[in-house]
Amino acid sequence: MPGVVEHVGRQSGTGLFIVFEGGDAVGKSTQVRALTQWLRDEGISVVQTFEPGDTAVGRTIRQAVLDPATGDLSPRTEALLYAADKAQHVAEVIAPALSAGQVVVCDRYLDSMLAYQGAGRVLAIDEVAMVARWATQDLRPQLTVLLDLDPSEAVSTKTDKDRLESAGEDLHHRVRHHFLALAEADPEHYLVLPARLPIAEIAARVRDRVRPLLADLP
Amino acid sequence: MPGVVEHVGRQSGTGLFIVFEGGDAVGKSTQVRALTQWLRDEGISVVQTFEPGDTAVGRTIRQAVLDPATGDLSPRTEALLYAADKAQHVAEVIAPALSAGQVVVCDRYLDSMLAYQGAGRVLAIDEVAMVARWATQDLRPQLTVLLDLDPSEAVSTKTDKDRLESAGEDLHHRVRHHFLALAEADPEHYLVLPARLPIAEIAARVRDRVRPLLADLP
Repeated sequence: MPGVVEHVGRQSGTGLFIVFEGGDAVGKSTQVRALTQWLRDEGISVVQTFEPGDTAVGRTIRQAVLDPATGDLSPRTEALLYAADKAQHVAEVIAPALSAGQVVVCDRYLDSMLAYQGAGRVLAIDEVAMVARWATQDLRPQLTVLLDLDPSEAVSTKTDKDRLESAGEDLHHRVRHHFLALAEADPEHYLVLPARLPIAEIAARVRDRVRPLLADLP
Repeated sequence: MPGVVEHVGRQSGTGLFIVFEGGDAVGKSTQVRALTQWLRDEGISVVQTFEPGDTAVGRTIRQAVLDPATGDLSPRTEALLYAADKAQHVAEVIAPALSAGQVVVCDRYLDSMLAYQGAGRVLAIDEVAMVARWATQDLRPQLTVLLDLDPSEAVSTKTDKDRLESAGEDLHHRVRHHFLALAEADPEHYLVLPARLPIAEIAARVRDRVRPLLADLP
């Protein structure tokens, strides 16, 4: 099976795997681009990617989940489809890049799956984690940057607040809680930053945390 | 989430769940039809179904797996996609029918996934089983009919033999081995029949095994 890597093992790559996590519209993609650009300016080989959907089958899965013709998906079906997306993303994109000694900068990874599926409160989060870790061959990032934002602060107008509330404000609070709990359980591999900080300040703090990790690159 | 059942539990339905398993072209669909027709003639409410693919998302998944544009799928991706198909099939089709006291007759189920994925020899079969059991909420058939055929006997002409060999005759032998091992581990819930028997004799033996199970129907 050319181009697809199986049996990665935890952090077995010689490269560096960095993930940005957080709720919607907290500035993840801006920071992913900023870090990627800085690394390239430093002459480092970088793969910039995202989940879900950055493979051919990932795009098909994403379309299937969003397509109204698919009908209601059971919570397990949805979790397994996201896990399949991650499995292919690791095997086809992330693991080969790490094996080649590159830096991988990824917009969302396992924590998003755990936070959102866990926040749905139908599935046991430890069971979802078990499936997700099997999917990804237990490949974990050396660094996850969590851009943290209180959902109550995420909206500035009354209209926006109404919309958030109708979409389930509780859900967004539970998502945040899960993200923070994952970070607190493993502080060595996390950098938690308030998403309200100026863009340039976040980018600078991320660079400060990433710089020493570059010493281990080949 | 209307129409979708979560948290089924093992054999919690009041109906009866019967599965036909075996390799390709051993006569499963013929026997599925024969049993379904007999049950209907007996005035019993039956749902005839199949895996993979008997839901909207299942069809999408099946197309994605078979579409050359998808490219090479990693073994874990493929297993997770089949697991997602099963999760939806249980939640949307099988569990609701069992809850309604119906008989479900299904062409392929978990054993096919385990036998084929296990025969691929890349993934640990106990790990695939763990994912598959989570996907299906550990819902297991009260009866699995295994139509057993030695792959060496499955083909009658030299040309067919060449074709089978080029497709990996070893693979077909390993698939058979996994099917038989699953049946041997749980004889109470299996009926193993030689697929070479006359169609009418297989159908009669299946009816003999099914008849006492009907007594528990509502």
